[in-house]
Amino acid sequence: MIESVQVIGARGRVGSTVSARLADRGVPLGDDDPELVLLCVPDRAIAEVAAGISDGPWMAHVSGATPLSALHPHTRRFSVHPLVSVTTTRGPEQLDGAWAAVTAETAEARATGRWLAETLGLRPFDLADEDRAAYHAAAAIASNYLVTLHEVAASLLEAVEVPALALTPLMRSVIENGFELTGPIARGDWQTVERHLEAIREMRPELEGLYVALAGATAEIAGAGLPSHKLLQGRSGAS
Amino acid sequence: MIESVQVIGARGRVGSTVSARLADRGVPLGDDDPELVLLCVPDRAIAEVAAGISDGPWMAHVSGATPLSALHPHTRRFSVHPLVSVTTTRGPEQLDGAWAAVTAETAEARATGRWLAETLGLRPFDLADEDRAAYHAAAAIASNYLVTLHEVAASLLEAVEVPALALTPLMRSVIENGFELTGPIARGDWQTVERHLEAIREMRPELEGLYVALAGATAEIAGAGLPSHKLLQGRSGAS
Repeated sequence: MIESVQVIGARGRVGSTVSARLADRGVPLGDDDPELVLLCVPDRAIAEVAAGISDGPWMAHVSGATPLSALHPHTRRFSVHPLVSVTTTRGPEQLDGAWAAVTAETAEARATGRWLAETLGLRPFDLADEDRAAYHAAAAIASNYLVTLHEVAASLLEAVEVPALALTPLMRSVIENGFELTGPIARGDWQTVERHLEAIREMRPELEGLYVALAGATAEIAGAGLPSHKLLQGRSGAS
Repeated sequence: MIESVQVIGARGRVGSTVSARLADRGVPLGDDDPELVLLCVPDRAIAEVAAGISDGPWMAHVSGATPLSALHPHTRRFSVHPLVSVTTTRGPEQLDGAWAAVTAETAEARATGRWLAETLGLRPFDLADEDRAAYHAAAAIASNYLVTLHEVAASLLEAVEVPALALTPLMRSVIENGFELTGPIARGDWQTVERHLEAIREMRPELEGLYVALAGATAEIAGAGLPSHKLLQGRSGAS
């Protein structure tokens, strides 16, 4: 569909992974009259880089948060956001099995975006430009805040001299088992939840607000009545 | 070390997995004069079941939250808590690579607990009985609240008609890449965070308190100054 691609930002985290995969798939890469210019630059740089490129080729970015208007004045444009965490120490196989949000304003742009996603080994889904903020919030919750949960749990384990490494297989197993909710809140065991809070107040009081917010959301998911008067007992302040 | 084990609660989630692994390893199972009685019953039933068993064999439970005193009046006792989510639809291979908290009051009990953990294919670490609440809070944060994050992110994706399935490879990749913090908070992009909050207020206002609590904890981890006056703008209430 597209015969040549120029990747701008090819040395970055996403750019290097994307370039390697395109090369693997036999897509010619280079800056000599490309059919598609793919911006793999930091979000804040997209508008400036796009504005500096002469009209002609397709123009696309790989940002989840940035609207298509950042590609102004180009009108043959779309975005493909790989919904996966990539690292420069691994290769393009990191993309396998992941999904990608394709945002486009015309049928032709959508088809081109889907071609790019599939060529990268990603499973495309459509994302409306105006829905980016909610989509990107969901992505941040699932990925960035997963790091936060791990750090918070690790800091409690550290307080009782348990190796934080032990959390990794646990967290993997929850994903492999399809995110089934188990544990004290699922079974309505508020006494155990209260003991958690006592330990947190004693060892990591700064985590209390976060724990309470997570317990409340979890109780909603479990459909369990949350005895918030108990949870909030002795609470030191707002989160 | 131990020649025979009786597993009580062998049809449950943990009990069936543990029994299958012990059988695989050639450990005789049965209720005829066992050397070790392993209680794989719900936490709330441990004390009653233990009290009903005649003195003689080693007595152990597999609960993370329950103190050893629940095994009263038995004194040759310990606990081994597999730090992993297990499901009845998979086999004992679920235990491979996971860790286990061994709690014991004597060197002999500790050695027996470690033998059990290793025989199950688990990597043992020591956990003091009085540190259980903090340990179990950490385990709940890393596993139960991981489910919560997934559900919350899925509910936002649902609001913009994106398949929640797309979250699974993303969350896996964050774990595989060693919990590296990326995203708007890591790079101090508070404008994007504010756009997340606007979308959440519009589409899932009940999630705002949780998002703010998570953003605050994440900013702490990132070492980034959190402009809480911005995050809290328009906030509808306590979390």
